[in-house]
Amino acid sequence: MKFNFTDLLTDHVSQERLARLISALAEIGKSDGDGVNRQALTPQDVAARKFLAEVAAGCGCEVYRDEAANVFFRRAGTTDGPPVVTGSHIDSQPTGGKFDGAYGVCAGLEMMAALNDAGVVTELPLEVAIWTNEEGCRFAPGSMGSAAFVQPELLSTFRESADSTGLRFGEALDDAANALQFIPLLPLNRPFSAFVEAHIEQGPVLEREGKTLGVVSGIQGVRWFRISVRGQTSHAGTTPREFRKDAVLVATELVQQAYAAANESDADLRLTVGRFEVSPGATNTIADGVTFTIDLRHPSDDVLDDFEARFRSWTRRQSACSISLEELMRHKPTPFSEKVRATVAEAAEQCGEPWRELLSGAFHDSMYLAEHCPTGMLFIPSKDGLSHHPAELSAPDELAWGAKALTLAMYRLANPSLDVAGQ
Amino acid sequence: MKFNFTDLLTDHVSQERLARLISALAEIGKSDGDGVNRQALTPQDVAARKFLAEVAAGCGCEVYRDEAANVFFRRAGTTDGPPVVTGSHIDSQPTGGKFDGAYGVCAGLEMMAALNDAGVVTELPLEVAIWTNEEGCRFAPGSMGSAAFVQPELLSTFRESADSTGLRFGEALDDAANALQFIPLLPLNRPFSAFVEAHIEQGPVLEREGKTLGVVSGIQGVRWFRISVRGQTSHAGTTPREFRKDAVLVATELVQQAYAAANESDADLRLTVGRFEVSPGATNTIADGVTFTIDLRHPSDDVLDDFEARFRSWTRRQSACSISLEELMRHKPTPFSEKVRATVAEAAEQCGEPWRELLSGAFHDSMYLAEHCPTGMLFIPSKDGLSHHPAELSAPDELAWGAKALTLAMYRLANPSLDVAGQ
Ligand SMILES: [Zn+2]
Ligand SMILES: [Zn+2]
Repeated sequence: MKFNFTDLLTDHVSQERLARLISALAEIGKSDGDGVNRQALTPQDVAARKFLAEVAAGCGCEVYRDEAANVFFRRAGTTDGPPVVTGSHIDSQPTGGKFDGAYGVCAGLEMMAALNDAGVVTELPLEVAIWTNEEGCRFAPGSMGSAAFVQPELLSTFRESADSTGLRFGEALDDAANALQFIPLLPLNRPFSAFVEAHIEQGPVLEREGKTLGVVSGIQGVRWFRISVRGQTSHAGTTPREFRKDAVLVATELVQQAYAAANESDADLRLTVGRFEVSPGATNTIADGVTFTIDLRHPSDDVLDDFEARFRSWTRRQSACSISLEELMRHKPTPFSEKVRATVAEAAEQCGEPWRELLSGAFHDSMYLAEHCPTGMLFIPSKDGLSHHPAELSAPDELAWGAKALTLAMYRLANPSLDVAGQ
Repeated sequence: MKFNFTDLLTDHVSQERLARLISALAEIGKSDGDGVNRQALTPQDVAARKFLAEVAAGCGCEVYRDEAANVFFRRAGTTDGPPVVTGSHIDSQPTGGKFDGAYGVCAGLEMMAALNDAGVVTELPLEVAIWTNEEGCRFAPGSMGSAAFVQPELLSTFRESADSTGLRFGEALDDAANALQFIPLLPLNRPFSAFVEAHIEQGPVLEREGKTLGVVSGIQGVRWFRISVRGQTSHAGTTPREFRKDAVLVATELVQQAYAAANESDADLRLTVGRFEVSPGATNTIADGVTFTIDLRHPSDDVLDDFEARFRSWTRRQSACSISLEELMRHKPTPFSEKVRATVAEAAEQCGEPWRELLSGAFHDSMYLAEHCPTGMLFIPSKDGLSHHPAELSAPDELAWGAKALTLAMYRLANPSLDVAGQ
């Protein structure tokens, strides 16, 4: 395939057409300057679905939706097997940019147009998915659409989640269903052959290393902890050292110990202490309380277990203060399918652009799809590692290279006979 | 003297009379439970001056005041030399107790009564002083009365200091002068032979070591610094370690380094980090800013200089973040007069109660008086080291032992011929 079709496929991916689609989509929910505020299931989010459905229909796709307001654009294959699916989300943070999520959907539609222009049909159907409420900023938690697709029993709980005005997700979903009732329904949890998500990196690695493409090996596991240190308040001037129960002294030692241990661990362990609150917080008063958080990430649960066990043991040591630890969140690591990783890597290599494997530090819909079918992701660079920000930016040629690699990988996955035939 | 007069003097100090005076004074400005709220130059503070002036007059004292509303109770000597003065302050914090400040004034009046009962007259006159606005909570800074007494040129600046309602210290001073106009004025900065202040420790040392009396060798020097660490905010999940500019990582390292260096220094160095504020302060966001404070105290300016120089050098080291340091406050150490220290120590020894030398970690009016005349202090224990709190407590016998030692020391200082005669 790569000798016969690579150039044919990539030559038909149009940098200009892709850029136009991204810009047009960004007009729906456009906010100050280059920003986008298109939160989940708002009128803007529903309007964006309708706009993209028209674009997809113009490419000859059939349009479907499901009970979670996820929308699918299908391009028929020569057989009727489970589709190979790409896509992402089109909801944004309140102060979002043009690319987070939207890029993956637009790249999928560009793939559809390129295949049309190249006159190529795949064995399996291809689909582009729009997953509902990935950001989780209006209705918590995030990734409701992909999670409910994979585990339909979650939907009834999600429906109770309310936004800041008290409106429930279920009501917003019913309104969207009403507005999109011209689109036929498909069941949740129907089989997929594979899922590949194109997304901006939301981090600095590709840009700093001069790589155009990132083949994502998986999503890190993450654990959040809140540590409370309780000492005793007393006067900074009159209290000798040996009588002090200084919560800042004990808490900063724990924090430094954690950072030192993270530094000695492998480079993939990411530790962040983002909150550190002191009471009473007066210059001449020894603190009786510190509460700080730990955000801990690694692709291996074993490494996370080990680090957590060591940290817990430090909190149990003899100390002038009492220390307690509470788990706030836990997500297991998501390793992606070996087959999809290899296919995306081969596609990146065929593009002739510099690429590397990397992990995703942020969550994505792919975290849930990985429980449903062989799944992988493809990253393109984010300028200055920025996301969830109006200044979010990827260069036009990077956007196009991502669509080219995506098209090659999707073509390969949608033609299983190539596996049998050899290459 | 100690063979002839010690028992005579101490036997006439009355634990009951002293306790009654402290209780009666605590009724003026009494707040919830055992608390006292008698802030500087409030009607309560002025009423307390009038009440104590009546008590002093009942002891045969002459009553004087000065332009800073400081009040003095004088017991004549056989000569007209500069007086030997004791006393403290009677203003309190909003949630103060019965003893901070008030004890030193009441112990001075008990001394007057005991000398009367013993039929003893000193060579030099004795005085009990009430210094205005030591606490500094209504009008900043603290110790205005003693500071203005020693440096009268400060008074015009102090007069401009306003309370939270906008009322200026000068207006409050004029109102107090009006209310106390029956009391004759004496000039600021008139000569004293010596000053001895009795005060509760406001710390845990005497109680923990089972000492009844503390001979204060001086007041620690104190320096306050604010340290600002500036990094760069980024996503906890997507930012590899080598790209991070984590302000919490850098700030906690500086704090730990400072505590470690303080630990290796002599036991009198006291370091407190009482504030530590993080921005933006989100669990999954690397902090771009930390601001923390350092409260540093030691009796020697050399030791403070050395520690400050070392700490400043750490802030200039290569780091992922930029670090700035700002000095917020500086007070030089105040060593007390050798002669007064020795006299107070001898008096404590004559009491036969356990005593020790110690430093004052908190400020007192004696800090300013030490610039004016030979000065010293005498501490009694504070239960649990508490002060500025309704639960502030010293035991009745400790209150009495302090008054006895004070009486012995004042008697000795007010009879200079004993120095010539030998003992
Ligand atoms: Zn996204
Ligand atoms: Zn005081």
